[in-house]
Amino acid sequence: MILVNGAATDLLAVTDRGLAYGDGVFRTFPVIGGRAQHWRFQFRKLREDCAALALPCPEETVLADEVTRVAAAHAECIVKVIVTRGSGERGYAPPPNPVPTRVVTAAPRVRHPEEFARGGVRVRVCSTRLASQPRLAGVKHLNRLENVLARSEWSDPAVAEGLMLDSEGNVIGGTMTNLFMVDEIGLVTPDLSKCGVAGVTRGRVLAAAARQAVSCRIEPLSLDRVLGARELILVNSVIGAWPVREIEGRPLRPGPGSARVQAWADQEDD
Amino acid sequence: MILVNGAATDLLAVTDRGLAYGDGVFRTFPVIGGRAQHWRFQFRKLREDCAALALPCPEETVLADEVTRVAAAHAECIVKVIVTRGSGERGYAPPPNPVPTRVVTAAPRVRHPEEFARGGVRVRVCSTRLASQPRLAGVKHLNRLENVLARSEWSDPAVAEGLMLDSEGNVIGGTMTNLFMVDEIGLVTPDLSKCGVAGVTRGRVLAAAARQAVSCRIEPLSLDRVLGARELILVNSVIGAWPVREIEGRPLRPGPGSARVQAWADQEDD
Repeated sequence: MILVNGAATDLLAVTDRGLAYGDGVFRTFPVIGGRAQHWRFQFRKLREDCAALALPCPEETVLADEVTRVAAAHAECIVKVIVTRGSGERGYAPPPNPVPTRVVTAAPRVRHPEEFARGGVRVRVCSTRLASQPRLAGVKHLNRLENVLARSEWSDPAVAEGLMLDSEGNVIGGTMTNLFMVDEIGLVTPDLSKCGVAGVTRGRVLAAAARQAVSCRIEPLSLDRVLGARELILVNSVIGAWPVREIEGRPLRPGPGSARVQAWADQEDD
Repeated sequence: MILVNGAATDLLAVTDRGLAYGDGVFRTFPVIGGRAQHWRFQFRKLREDCAALALPCPEETVLADEVTRVAAAHAECIVKVIVTRGSGERGYAPPPNPVPTRVVTAAPRVRHPEEFARGGVRVRVCSTRLASQPRLAGVKHLNRLENVLARSEWSDPAVAEGLMLDSEGNVIGGTMTNLFMVDEIGLVTPDLSKCGVAGVTRGRVLAAAARQAVSCRIEPLSLDRVLGARELILVNSVIGAWPVREIEGRPLRPGPGSARVQAWADQEDD
């Protein structure tokens, strides 16, 4: 089921600025037994991302209701929420009083192999770099061509994710995931002040680490450091956490750091 | 009138990758008396931009026919052609056999004040910078949030355009235009190998200069050089060419360089 501004339809005005310019933001998360997982965090992030684009954010109750409606027919599903700046005159100038468009869709929850979460995944390094754009860094907006280009670099289903570097050669994350690394001191996750998406699960893991007084630094991470990591863990709201068991052909052994991040990512309520 | 894949409708599937990721390209140009202006160049650029995204380009005859159909009711109009990678599975990976979506729309030709082309325009410098992304530089793709952010920096209708700089402080062009500058040697236009859109009118002006053995260099252009230019000219397919008569409060006098670029931009057939 798909709702556009609350109405059941799978069609959108072609004049929408989401299509014209990618002028909007989105969220993707599981809904299980009617419960949107970590909804409080998902909505907060949506509101922050709307604010970053000076885009009026829809009311929380309106969106929560639409999420419930699209998920109603599913025991488990993945819900995607898109908020755009709506339709406008021709030209880049945002309309002075935009009427945002809400698109809420549910899709069956694709089951990744259990082995991914338990035994870890194989990962490659993409050649497509992320451009440095501080004004949009961290925001999950609809301008995602870099991710599309990076994800089109491989088709081997045995490779679960590709890491993306910035123009200086620092690792920012996966095409669809955030990255945590275990080094001799503790946990580290890339600095996202110039590019990348600061996802909800990354934020929840950082908060859990802080609560439990586990060191988790935010730093620029060179590819060399990542290739020499003790452990690597990929996270997002849909997959939870996947330890990495192989990167660019080098084996890695998931350990206690991976287990810890995974437990935090999978925590029901936080 | 709007055509989506040849059918008259103003609606598009919400699952289109143009909306989800900005996974597509576009063109905007005048159609006058049923004739798409500089169609040969417009289609060539569309084909190049599709190729840059590994997107199958629709047939020229199909698109030309759709342009004619949407323009039929207008003596003069602005036609926009969007080509996206179509609908696909969830996720960034492009479908192996994408079926592109064509969106062709006509809008009334907004008449800019005659004074803009004759006497020149006022221009500001935007604080939003263009990120350096060589993989997408030059391509008119649907990821245009930087332009939206830059264009939302001002609302004074007396300011016709804002110049955008790259992260190193070089001027790349306007939010919707390419830039030419006249210095003591001749014409110069910014190097677009790291960001910006290499528009059709820019290409036509470069070709005309070459044909007439007029020097027109492609160089990185610092803001200081632009602020100290003898003449500045903004071009695109919709406006033709506008000389600049004021930049950030400093007066500029349009001269023979502006007239020359304008004549080339307005040339009917080339």
